[in-house]
Amino acid sequence: MHVIIVYDVAEERVNKVNKFLRSYLHWIQNSVFRGDITQSQLQAIKDGIKGIIEEDYDSVTIYVLPSEKYLKVINIGIEKGTTDMIF
Amino acid sequence: MHVIIVYDVAEERVNKVNKFLRSYLHWIQNSVFRGDITQSQLQAIKDGIKGIIEEDYDSVTIYVLPSEKYLKVINIGIEKGTTDMIF
Repeated sequence: MHVIIVYDVAEERVNKVNKFLRSYLHWIQNSVFRGDITQSQLQAIKDGIKGIIEEDYDSVTIYVLPSEKYLKVINIGIEKGTTDMIF
Repeated sequence: MHVIIVYDVAEERVNKVNKFLRSYLHWIQNSVFRGDITQSQLQAIKDGIKGIIEEDYDSVTIYVLPSEKYLKVINIGIEKGTTDMIF
């Protein structure tokens, strides 16, 4: 499956969320990650996010697609992140 | 078609991009909009965004899906925007 994750979390938790998601997905721009993952990785991401954020204050949205082939990407302006930067 | 738009633009242009996208799409969270649009609306959005941003500084990414039915949405924490708030 292919996911796009967007998040809006308190300043003090941004780095932790960033660091966590970088191990699974590509950084696209501030608060946006994307990439291909498995079902078990999705569960690990959900569990990991729940362990980092304050659920009554922060917001994380995971958009799940069956595959990247359903997705067309249009960039206007500079392209911040690319899909070959998992580290 | 269904689109998710994420953007990372200079502070002085954020409100203008926000205001413009609100007329087509649902505000989801800071820098994220989503909704169903037509091919001509997609072109209008692309043209409108190009008229607002500085393409050598700002970044706007439009994720295009054939339809919302390909999308599963998982929210963790609070849900900031909903898909019934076009105004």
